[in-house]
Amino acid sequence: MVAIDVLRASTTICQALVAGARDILPVAEIEEAKRLAESLGQENTLLCGEREGRIIPGFDLGNSPLEYPPEKVKDKTLVMCTTNGTALLARLKGVETVIAGFVNAGAVVRRLGSLKGDMAVFCAGLHGGFSLEDAVCGGTIVAGLESRLARRERVLLSDGALAGKALFQRWGKNLPGLFKVAHHARYLASLGFERDLAFAARMNSLPVVPVYREGRITSLKN
Amino acid sequence: MVAIDVLRASTTICQALVAGARDILPVAEIEEAKRLAESLGQENTLLCGEREGRIIPGFDLGNSPLEYPPEKVKDKTLVMCTTNGTALLARLKGVETVIAGFVNAGAVVRRLGSLKGDMAVFCAGLHGGFSLEDAVCGGTIVAGLESRLARRERVLLSDGALAGKALFQRWGKNLPGLFKVAHHARYLASLGFERDLAFAARMNSLPVVPVYREGRITSLKN
Repeated sequence: MVAIDVLRASTTICQALVAGARDILPVAEIEEAKRLAESLGQENTLLCGEREGRIIPGFDLGNSPLEYPPEKVKDKTLVMCTTNGTALLARLKGVETVIAGFVNAGAVVRRLGSLKGDMAVFCAGLHGGFSLEDAVCGGTIVAGLESRLARRERVLLSDGALAGKALFQRWGKNLPGLFKVAHHARYLASLGFERDLAFAARMNSLPVVPVYREGRITSLKN
Repeated sequence: MVAIDVLRASTTICQALVAGARDILPVAEIEEAKRLAESLGQENTLLCGEREGRIIPGFDLGNSPLEYPPEKVKDKTLVMCTTNGTALLARLKGVETVIAGFVNAGAVVRRLGSLKGDMAVFCAGLHGGFSLEDAVCGGTIVAGLESRLARRERVLLSDGALAGKALFQRWGKNLPGLFKVAHHARYLASLGFERDLAFAARMNSLPVVPVYREGRITSLKN
């Protein structure tokens, strides 16, 4: 299973793990995040998340990957609450899930390319609806997996996977162009988060594989 | 509002109207279709529809456009019950909706290209999920409308419309290739409906604009 929320939960989770965060606990609701952080104690825990793109009042960090350098997050447990991304993960509880963005697409494909059987890619989307950048990223994973797997077995793509692959072919080599037209990217730019878009568009810049299982996201060791 | 179910309700509705059907009454459920047909009397009414691609037992016609020549449907009222297409229309009751497939995409664009304001394209999909051919057809309408409207006003596309347009660019000139990979097209081929696929792939072959209002689909007069 792969879960995608390019802007920005996937990207921020990758950055936090590369910066040395110990683990990340995704939750759907703000009050639940506060209770969980309180129960874990303040010393090694940070409360992170956004609503409508902005940091939640009283939280330590928002949802910009630029807020997650090693000096802030190394060895910390991050309790994270975002509108679409961690809400999707909270729904997938009990299913081992790999988290993907453009920044780690290649690493995810290398990891999943040795598995067999059905594979599903979930796009977080926007408020339950379609979001273009998540579909393009899903297509990036599909295209990468197909070219690896097709060497040794028959690959059958669903209609959604076929569409994602076509969207990757259209925009995969022009992510800044994608972020000029996609709705949520334009919204984030209007809030002043242009640097987050540039960060999220750096294909394969963070070769990490975040794995969500038993309620925690950790970095898969190679 | 535009509603799309390429395989096959949109295509069959276009063919029926071109063949001289008086009107088409879409309903969601089989029992409802039977009751409605009974109340209208047998003489000028035909019961039409499918489940899992096959004609409903006891119905006059299935959902293949080839079953709707003038000698069968001229001046008739068709009560139509299909899994995805007419079920979508039944949900859109009360909203004036134009019905589009590849066979009449150009006619729909010419008709809608003179309207102003927001426009929404609904894809029937498959059992509530995504279907590739409906998305490609939606993109055909979007691309056509955009090139007409952009001459005189600013056009803003949603993420779904941007994706549809990209899918049209990928497959719009190769509909037989699309029907080789799309899930529902492959299913219909497996039932022996290859000729229906060839029929549905004839872009702009039926220049009719079916309009659904007040529970009835009729052909818009030019």
